[in-house]
Amino acid sequence: MSFSNHFSIKNIPYGIATSSSHPEKAVVTRVHDHVFFLSDLPIQASEEIKRALAQTTLNALASIPKDKLGELRSSLQKLLTDEQTVTKHGVPVDQVQLHLPIEVRGFTDFSCSKQHLLNAGEASTGRRILPPASVHYPIGYGGRASSVRVSGTPVVRPYGVYQNESGEGVTFGPSQGVDFELELAAIIGKPSKFGERVAVKDADDHIFGLVLLNDWSARDVQKLEMMPLGPNNSKSFHTSISPWVVTLEALEPFEAPPPPKETAPAAFLKDPKEKSSYDISLAVDVIRKGVSTTVCKAQLSWMYWTFRDLVAQQTINGCNVNTGDLLATGTVSGLEDHEHGCLLETTMGGKKSVKLSDGQDLVWLQDGDEARLTGFCGDGVGFGDVTGVITPATPFEG
Amino acid sequence: MSFSNHFSIKNIPYGIATSSSHPEKAVVTRVHDHVFFLSDLPIQASEEIKRALAQTTLNALASIPKDKLGELRSSLQKLLTDEQTVTKHGVPVDQVQLHLPIEVRGFTDFSCSKQHLLNAGEASTGRRILPPASVHYPIGYGGRASSVRVSGTPVVRPYGVYQNESGEGVTFGPSQGVDFELELAAIIGKPSKFGERVAVKDADDHIFGLVLLNDWSARDVQKLEMMPLGPNNSKSFHTSISPWVVTLEALEPFEAPPPPKETAPAAFLKDPKEKSSYDISLAVDVIRKGVSTTVCKAQLSWMYWTFRDLVAQQTINGCNVNTGDLLATGTVSGLEDHEHGCLLETTMGGKKSVKLSDGQDLVWLQDGDEARLTGFCGDGVGFGDVTGVITPATPFEG
Repeated sequence: MSFSNHFSIKNIPYGIATSSSHPEKAVVTRVHDHVFFLSDLPIQASEEIKRALAQTTLNALASIPKDKLGELRSSLQKLLTDEQTVTKHGVPVDQVQLHLPIEVRGFTDFSCSKQHLLNAGEASTGRRILPPASVHYPIGYGGRASSVRVSGTPVVRPYGVYQNESGEGVTFGPSQGVDFELELAAIIGKPSKFGERVAVKDADDHIFGLVLLNDWSARDVQKLEMMPLGPNNSKSFHTSISPWVVTLEALEPFEAPPPPKETAPAAFLKDPKEKSSYDISLAVDVIRKGVSTTVCKAQLSWMYWTFRDLVAQQTINGCNVNTGDLLATGTVSGLEDHEHGCLLETTMGGKKSVKLSDGQDLVWLQDGDEARLTGFCGDGVGFGDVTGVITPATPFEG
Repeated sequence: MSFSNHFSIKNIPYGIATSSSHPEKAVVTRVHDHVFFLSDLPIQASEEIKRALAQTTLNALASIPKDKLGELRSSLQKLLTDEQTVTKHGVPVDQVQLHLPIEVRGFTDFSCSKQHLLNAGEASTGRRILPPASVHYPIGYGGRASSVRVSGTPVVRPYGVYQNESGEGVTFGPSQGVDFELELAAIIGKPSKFGERVAVKDADDHIFGLVLLNDWSARDVQKLEMMPLGPNNSKSFHTSISPWVVTLEALEPFEAPPPPKETAPAAFLKDPKEKSSYDISLAVDVIRKGVSTTVCKAQLSWMYWTFRDLVAQQTINGCNVNTGDLLATGTVSGLEDHEHGCLLETTMGGKKSVKLSDGQDLVWLQDGDEARLTGFCGDGVGFGDVTGVITPATPFEG
């Protein structure tokens, strides 16, 4: 898919790419189906920006104050509407290799969706109740930063230890419950200081932009390990993010209110901004043997907690955020079966199946299956996709 | 305390320090009460080692192959037994400032102690049972790397959200349940590749050395947030590590067997090495108003899972470890009340108190209380201490 309509001049996302003429990783943007190496362009930029554009990740760029980034964005929008510039410097997107856009520092994965908590809880424990903390603030867990990879990296089926179906004893072997999780993540730009809190009203200052994120999960491994410390090995084998970081500035026209709070939040989560979320349409397609089936459609604006809440929650105890941290939403889910952002929910923990377009049954992901997550705001702004194909487990050889 | 007997010529730990004559952070070692800036010493070192010694963290040094680090260790032991060298280059330890020794990349905190799991479970839920996974492999959670600080950094009482004592409603305010956790952590030297597993028999190759670690915890915040994602904000406000990294080479004489496995572990955790743990005597002193009380004495060798197990567990699913990662033991605890490595266990969740030397009651840590963790192997090898004083919460001002 080209996703040309995701990347109009109104978007100007950032990424990291190489090409035959640019063998070293460098900062790029994209307009429709052309990628531009920023160092090629005749930008009037400060030394700080020039240094940031010479890096092999977006971290330096992300840490630059927003007013200066705004100037860069304006320059790029002006330059890249000029046909001569496009012709001279544009590289067709299929002729570049896109890389992990940021050096991921920390990674916290939150649970912003009440529906996901209810559905996943029911699938795992049989009880449809919200975790007690989740009505007061976004609950979350420490994700693994080292294994975050760019979209397209094959997802090797992980080994793990899980309970036998009989309930007696455990198996050590390839997970039989590989799942996707439809998520978005904020990438921290401006860091906060150790010991300081970021107020919810100031949170946007610290968010460089958003990426699509697939928090691949091994549900059998997860089921055994959850109690009492939460997910660990069932998630840490691989997390995929989209190659394009869409800035908050590009998302501004799509600001939207989150659902009203049902329980009065603590003072630090009282956000004076009404439209503190975004209208982003999300979807998951599963591609099996060449046949693509849309298995989920969901909206970011359904999420009970916002990215602004996540920044406030992460720092309320004095914990500092760094440039390159990921703060993710957890699975984005809605009420209906076709609105569930992971198979754990749609199949109720593997107890039922989803019909693919050609009539095949999908319970968990099989070797060769691809999961493709997309996010689109409308009016020429979107995220493209984040994809991954499940490849067979590497045999354990002692 | 000087801990002079922890730092004989048999130890040769590494750290990062500054002094009046060395205003830039640099690599140091210590013999008894003298610190040595390695760049001062007439070492015959490779360019690789010289470059590593010019860094402001130990990460570059930690990533150097063990045979070359062994040569460096031997040179230092030879040099620093020479009285002239000591006189010429030794800086009294009270004249240097010690800094965070490594740039912490990832941080996984495991639960290696069966006693801790039983005690903490009983204190939290009233049931004295092992989590089902914990008999099969070391369970763990993703800790927060950004807020790891060196020993001596004040520990600001964190704000958080916790259940009211009545059980009705929640409070947002300074935690009233600040606790220490007595732990050790392995620092990863040699990284592993994404997608590859580190066999338990090869795990030591990847461990540069160990540090003492205090996983400060806010128990009231933790109690509310644990279900179902595990600890997050209750831990992420601050983690302290000792300034000295004791290498596995220094610890070799103290190798000891862990307890026998009660349940046959999965193939990837079958360690051919019998003495896969270490004899390290650990203690916690609480100092209140100048009065010091030893509230815990415990042994690392009581731990059911070893550091070698942790490396194997972290990587069995293909997750890569990076130089500078911390893999921690979780609370080190024994059977008896005076062997519990955190107040959650000793006070059964705040339901009873510990008598301090002067008769005062200790339940949770008060502002001004200091917790000091120490670790000593014997025969001139130890870790010194890791300390922190609780300071009042920074008022929330909206």
